[in-house]
Amino acid sequence: MSAPLQIGLLGRGTVGGALHELVDARGEEIAAITGRLPEVCGVLRRSEGDIGEILEAADVVVELMGGTDPAREYVLRALRARKHVVSANKQLIAQHGDELFEAARDAGVQLRFEAAVAGVVPVIRVIQESLAATEITKVFGIVNGTTNFILSEMASTGASYGETLARAQELGYAEADPTEDVNGADAAAKMAILARLAFHSPVGLDDVAFEGIEEIQPDDIAYAKELGLSLKLLGVAERVEGGISVRVFPCFLYRGHPLAPVEGPFNAVMVEAPTITEITMSGPGAGGTETATAVLGDIVSIMSGHAPVHEARRRLEIVRDISSSFYLHLEVADRPGVLAQITAVLGRNEVSVRSVVQRGHGDEARLVMVMHEGPERRFQSALEQIAGLDFLRAAPRAIRVIEEEFV
Amino acid sequence: MSAPLQIGLLGRGTVGGALHELVDARGEEIAAITGRLPEVCGVLRRSEGDIGEILEAADVVVELMGGTDPAREYVLRALRARKHVVSANKQLIAQHGDELFEAARDAGVQLRFEAAVAGVVPVIRVIQESLAATEITKVFGIVNGTTNFILSEMASTGASYGETLARAQELGYAEADPTEDVNGADAAAKMAILARLAFHSPVGLDDVAFEGIEEIQPDDIAYAKELGLSLKLLGVAERVEGGISVRVFPCFLYRGHPLAPVEGPFNAVMVEAPTITEITMSGPGAGGTETATAVLGDIVSIMSGHAPVHEARRRLEIVRDISSSFYLHLEVADRPGVLAQITAVLGRNEVSVRSVVQRGHGDEARLVMVMHEGPERRFQSALEQIAGLDFLRAAPRAIRVIEEEFV
Repeated sequence: MSAPLQIGLLGRGTVGGALHELVDARGEEIAAITGRLPEVCGVLRRSEGDIGEILEAADVVVELMGGTDPAREYVLRALRARKHVVSANKQLIAQHGDELFEAARDAGVQLRFEAAVAGVVPVIRVIQESLAATEITKVFGIVNGTTNFILSEMASTGASYGETLARAQELGYAEADPTEDVNGADAAAKMAILARLAFHSPVGLDDVAFEGIEEIQPDDIAYAKELGLSLKLLGVAERVEGGISVRVFPCFLYRGHPLAPVEGPFNAVMVEAPTITEITMSGPGAGGTETATAVLGDIVSIMSGHAPVHEARRRLEIVRDISSSFYLHLEVADRPGVLAQITAVLGRNEVSVRSVVQRGHGDEARLVMVMHEGPERRFQSALEQIAGLDFLRAAPRAIRVIEEEFV
Repeated sequence: MSAPLQIGLLGRGTVGGALHELVDARGEEIAAITGRLPEVCGVLRRSEGDIGEILEAADVVVELMGGTDPAREYVLRALRARKHVVSANKQLIAQHGDELFEAARDAGVQLRFEAAVAGVVPVIRVIQESLAATEITKVFGIVNGTTNFILSEMASTGASYGETLARAQELGYAEADPTEDVNGADAAAKMAILARLAFHSPVGLDDVAFEGIEEIQPDDIAYAKELGLSLKLLGVAERVEGGISVRVFPCFLYRGHPLAPVEGPFNAVMVEAPTITEITMSGPGAGGTETATAVLGDIVSIMSGHAPVHEARRRLEIVRDISSSFYLHLEVADRPGVLAQITAVLGRNEVSVRSVVQRGHGDEARLVMVMHEGPERRFQSALEQIAGLDFLRAAPRAIRVIEEEFV
């Protein structure tokens, strides 16, 4: 048996604590697999520990600090000192991936980050290793547990976004400041990472168009239910004509869609390629022991052998003008000719209507429409013109729809 | 760039052909990741190729012959000649795993077999690598696409088992001799492999209790639908009091169960552990390019670096007396006291009834019952006594039920 493997822990919140316990509890099992016993040689927290000493003593540095400053500096120092690094930090990898991957390659060490996307769901490993040689065409799914919990709750209780967010905060599914989760920025960072790995192209945060769930109304969910749709915050990274598209948006899915039954704080990611049809992976997207288990899997892989570090091998264009199908919710005056005027605007913009339902009368009159798929810019143009019609009682609300029928 | 990596192909059916094409099409991509271009240096088929020459020339041997003779001999020869091996052969790994793993460890080479279970669904890698240090408590799922296709079709068309099997054969989802698929033996070999990897214990074919789907009647599926159940051939490997249990059986799942929506020839595997809650992976369980993609992922991993070979580190007891919930279908004479006699037998054997539905009258009278979970031996004992009751018009039919409600 070789000397123990020394693990330096940067940050020690819930995940760090759970990891420390797992390393102790599963140490002998890990030694049986890898020939080395893992040990925590030092912990850096705000009030404790010296980064220099920890980097000196560690064989593997685990970064669980979050944020990019000083995480970026510490991880770079670790890599340059030829220490392997495991990070659970999506912002660090999404914003500084190029620099970090290069430092890891130069030093001949590994940089692993399974826990940065979808927690313990092994999507990073599957894309980087199982599908390393596969021409992936699309990676998409539910990569933010907070918003999936909120949307599931809104659908089952009928409560408002604000009430449901407060409940998620009580239950620990949403942070005190939930901004990055609910506005889609957290999911966007994760999709930038997945797009980079799937397409071997540098994808930055600015390349990801994102929208959040703050404007979702209980009405939208209730009407959509009648149409057989369920609402998810979806991240999509796909090859399109001319390059790739990476985006995050609330989206209605038909009932038969594999992601439709994913409820609560769970994450699920689908990978498509002509040679694999599709693979779906799902599980808890967060949680202390779950995230720590993902980190531990990375540590054991580092102990087990060499693995190549990601390298962007091409630069694919980011395409922003893509095609989508939309749901459109309009509060309108209850008088003849309203539907005719709206469909005329849609028609002039070459937007084709799939279904329309009129609801209520008088001050309650609403139109709920679903469009066929078409270029987003045509729909946006139609939407601007519709917003200017004098019989609208409120701003129009539009949400994307995945209209393919699965199964 | 180093010298090309030479791949020796043993067997060249659909999967071999697809693999050869993928190696050619994706060669440069693989060279960019691993530093070596892969090349097929020789193909062994019945009418072509020399095993000695191929083993001599190859760096990696890919075994796609199926069966254990001469696959076992060739793979052993390859490992002893210090060649890495990738196999898609579930029977080979399930029956001769111990010997092959030992030979690989002795030679210091890798033995990978992702394609042997659930095709391109990366369940082997996730259990062996992502969850290497995790104390897995249960691995279960749908690991045979032929039977899942047949059961899905029977449920949607109402056709008989025989008709549906013929249709599956026409469509290429079932082989000319479907015995090993439909009697559960194929799934049993796969579950032996998954149990071995999950629990680090040697599990042989004889350790897996299996039942098939040949006796399933359209009636059973129709009645179960009314109870909100769907029928799957399930493989389960789990830790139980005193050891582990590994088995394959047709089983009704409640509608909310994550495996209930898995239809057609797809496979899906769930892994449970206290530290991960559960991970679910699904995708096509067979197909030429899908299986070849799994093999190629293994080849790229071998080219990318070292990985430990599986080693059984303990020998867990195989426990056969486990607890289950059952559905029971009885064709009975239509006269007073019948239900009382049956429930008396169940009660004497301490089997508790969850629901009972009486159907039809006269010569059509049937009882459809679902039991609460309890020791299987008690239910089997009750079943034998019920089979002897004089008012039964046909042999009783019993099918297991997973009665936990998910979500």
